[in-house]
Amino acid sequence: MKKILVLGAGLSTPSLINYLLDHAKEQKWHVRVGDVSEETALKRVNGHPHSEGFKFDVFDDDQRAKEIRNASIVISMLPARMHFLVAKTCIRFKRDMVTASYVAKEIREFNEEARQNGILLLNELGLDPGIDHMSAMQIIDRIKSEGGKLIAFKSSTGGLVAPKFDNNPWNYKFTWNPRNVVLAGQGGAQFIKRGMYKYIPYHKLFTRVQRINIDGYGEFEVYPNRDSLKYRNAYGIDDIPSMFRGTIRKPGYSRTWNYLVQLGLTDDSFVIENSENLTYRDFTNSFMKYNKVKTVEEKFAEYLDIDPESFDMYKLRWLGLFENKQVKIKQATPAQILQKMLEEKWTLDPEDKDMIVMQHNFEFEQDGKTYKIISSMVVEGKNNTDTAMAITVGLPLAIGCKLILNGKIATTGVQIPTVPAIYNPILEELARYGIRFKEEVMEITEPNGD
Amino acid sequence: MKKILVLGAGLSTPSLINYLLDHAKEQKWHVRVGDVSEETALKRVNGHPHSEGFKFDVFDDDQRAKEIRNASIVISMLPARMHFLVAKTCIRFKRDMVTASYVAKEIREFNEEARQNGILLLNELGLDPGIDHMSAMQIIDRIKSEGGKLIAFKSSTGGLVAPKFDNNPWNYKFTWNPRNVVLAGQGGAQFIKRGMYKYIPYHKLFTRVQRINIDGYGEFEVYPNRDSLKYRNAYGIDDIPSMFRGTIRKPGYSRTWNYLVQLGLTDDSFVIENSENLTYRDFTNSFMKYNKVKTVEEKFAEYLDIDPESFDMYKLRWLGLFENKQVKIKQATPAQILQKMLEEKWTLDPEDKDMIVMQHNFEFEQDGKTYKIISSMVVEGKNNTDTAMAITVGLPLAIGCKLILNGKIATTGVQIPTVPAIYNPILEELARYGIRFKEEVMEITEPNGD
Repeated sequence: MKKILVLGAGLSTPSLINYLLDHAKEQKWHVRVGDVSEETALKRVNGHPHSEGFKFDVFDDDQRAKEIRNASIVISMLPARMHFLVAKTCIRFKRDMVTASYVAKEIREFNEEARQNGILLLNELGLDPGIDHMSAMQIIDRIKSEGGKLIAFKSSTGGLVAPKFDNNPWNYKFTWNPRNVVLAGQGGAQFIKRGMYKYIPYHKLFTRVQRINIDGYGEFEVYPNRDSLKYRNAYGIDDIPSMFRGTIRKPGYSRTWNYLVQLGLTDDSFVIENSENLTYRDFTNSFMKYNKVKTVEEKFAEYLDIDPESFDMYKLRWLGLFENKQVKIKQATPAQILQKMLEEKWTLDPEDKDMIVMQHNFEFEQDGKTYKIISSMVVEGKNNTDTAMAITVGLPLAIGCKLILNGKIATTGVQIPTVPAIYNPILEELARYGIRFKEEVMEITEPNGD
Repeated sequence: MKKILVLGAGLSTPSLINYLLDHAKEQKWHVRVGDVSEETALKRVNGHPHSEGFKFDVFDDDQRAKEIRNASIVISMLPARMHFLVAKTCIRFKRDMVTASYVAKEIREFNEEARQNGILLLNELGLDPGIDHMSAMQIIDRIKSEGGKLIAFKSSTGGLVAPKFDNNPWNYKFTWNPRNVVLAGQGGAQFIKRGMYKYIPYHKLFTRVQRINIDGYGEFEVYPNRDSLKYRNAYGIDDIPSMFRGTIRKPGYSRTWNYLVQLGLTDDSFVIENSENLTYRDFTNSFMKYNKVKTVEEKFAEYLDIDPESFDMYKLRWLGLFENKQVKIKQATPAQILQKMLEEKWTLDPEDKDMIVMQHNFEFEQDGKTYKIISSMVVEGKNNTDTAMAITVGLPLAIGCKLILNGKIATTGVQIPTVPAIYNPILEELARYGIRFKEEVMEITEPNGD
């Protein structure tokens, strides 16, 4: 009997835990799920015979040591900043660990120690990061092995509402952490195009949008995602002249969102005085000049150079920017007030389903010709527990865990899933769950760098 | 013999030290000037019989203790972050201390200890902060004492080049720390207008400009200066419905500067790859889209919506944004590259003189009528050592020091110069040095909140 310890039972874990439970009998697994809320942990395992749910406090050193020592492998679904504690204890008791989080500096520093202890700390094994790495690396490695030379790579991902439930003027609902959506892009973006580094400050980011098409789903837009450069090294494509990572939205989102950015409503760096007693209209007005005669709407349209009769202006009115409704949050930053306003409009209904969209674009030269590959994936959620987000984050983790327990992954140290021994079996099994990429290859006359 | 210890002998100290030396004989002072560079310290005292210049290291605990113990009073002209060490030692040996810097949190925390030891830590006694506080408080206290009710206060200051030497298309040269000019405004601005808090994000700051006039000097523009709210309490005007602080430039500066902000060139948060080998033209281009046919100038004008034939575009070309000249700084942030470009254009010639401009606007009600007071000060530099900046920062400090040594200031603890016992004698003596405000009072029919 192998013992799998899942730490954290939040919104991204249902599909992960269900996979583990569904395979528990056949694989001879016992699945222990610990969460800060015992109730949540028990709900996730739902009385399955090969499982236990229990209250877990990562800061309780004794409990953490006891649980990890008793486990065969640990899947940490805790907030990223807590992985450090789990990893330290995994090294102590020589247990492998899997996460869906970016490799933080303090995790990277465990690399040598993990190797010496013969254990694997496998990270970035969710959706983004995760499926993006694996699906891109499979194509990059194939191009290389067939003698091609990669000259451009663009990769974009978005969490959206599924088309059938896409019924508001922004074509957007919160399918994940709303705060991250409000603050998205605040560091600006960097990428490389035809050998030239490109930099975009936050206040220009949402004007630098590209268009993509996905068969059967139509047109989307992509805005640049913070760090497009750091994976050149991990992907073994250090010298690639064009590389871009982006975030996918439905067309028109970025243009209208930019008006909120321009006004200053996404700022999270200071507190609005007397915020609880302001109305949304006061809040909007506080970013514009005093004027005795003009309405807030008139000032807004003038200040941001927006046609008062435009669809953009309709979308902004629809959000509630000009409503006499009280903010009712004390000591709130502009971003927090905006988030509250958006949550009143963009929250999924119980019957709504979400959707994950991912697309990679490659340009490469081979035998004197130039080719383009477009590889696209769309996953729609099954219900409001097995969301597209939970499925695409959870299944790679679960499959990765199975491979490790079955001795199929020989490597040790701090890793991300960029090698064939990891990505091939995971992508193959994901396809059986409907998580698959549709690939188009075409010859092109001239590369355009994306 | 009273011993005055001046710590730091940088660009803001010549007028301060000259005042002290000029009054040394009459006042029976001995002036010791310590600087990290012995040469600079010796240059400042210039062999004056009542003085000594010496090498001083604020981090040398023994030297700091010895020097402060031997002094009657300490004037710290060191970088603001070092005042903490000096203040601590001043408390230990019960010595008064004077600075021209903002009261940092760690200095404020010395208040109780300073009181218990009967010493005065007098800060913000330079130009801005300094002369601004004193000149404003003198008028505010007068309005109050005459039964008036203040309803609006606007205060603006600028360091500029004197009109005779104002011969470039930006009407601006660096008269102080260039880095601060490049990064100015990055926290955005906050103020209050007719009882309504107003917030401006950085990327909109330079579009929210007001106009002022100064007799004999013509029109200037004012952009909002970060924190207009925090002095309401120190000035005893907590309930004032309109309060605004601004930075003064010549007309047109902010509009053109805003193009640099919009492009992203003032960003100091990341490093440009391969910066040393780029040209200024490459640097500018790296903030815009790749385009095979358009020139960098064409893309720039389109992206920022600027008329290619405009004076703004001329000013931007004049700076060198489109020149094929190498950056030659390694690991540079955009702000550092821009600063280098500006230093090649905005550096004062040896014969150039600088100018300080300050204007306060008050609106108040009295006996059923409404009045406006405009109080303006202009100080031009004498030469490239006794600059307007050095004069206006140094003389208030020197005079304040004299008042303390002569027992004219009875208070203790951490203070700023907002009380009559401090501001009256200092303003009176400053006027004898030509640092005086010209005041206009007029009845107005309707206040406009600034």
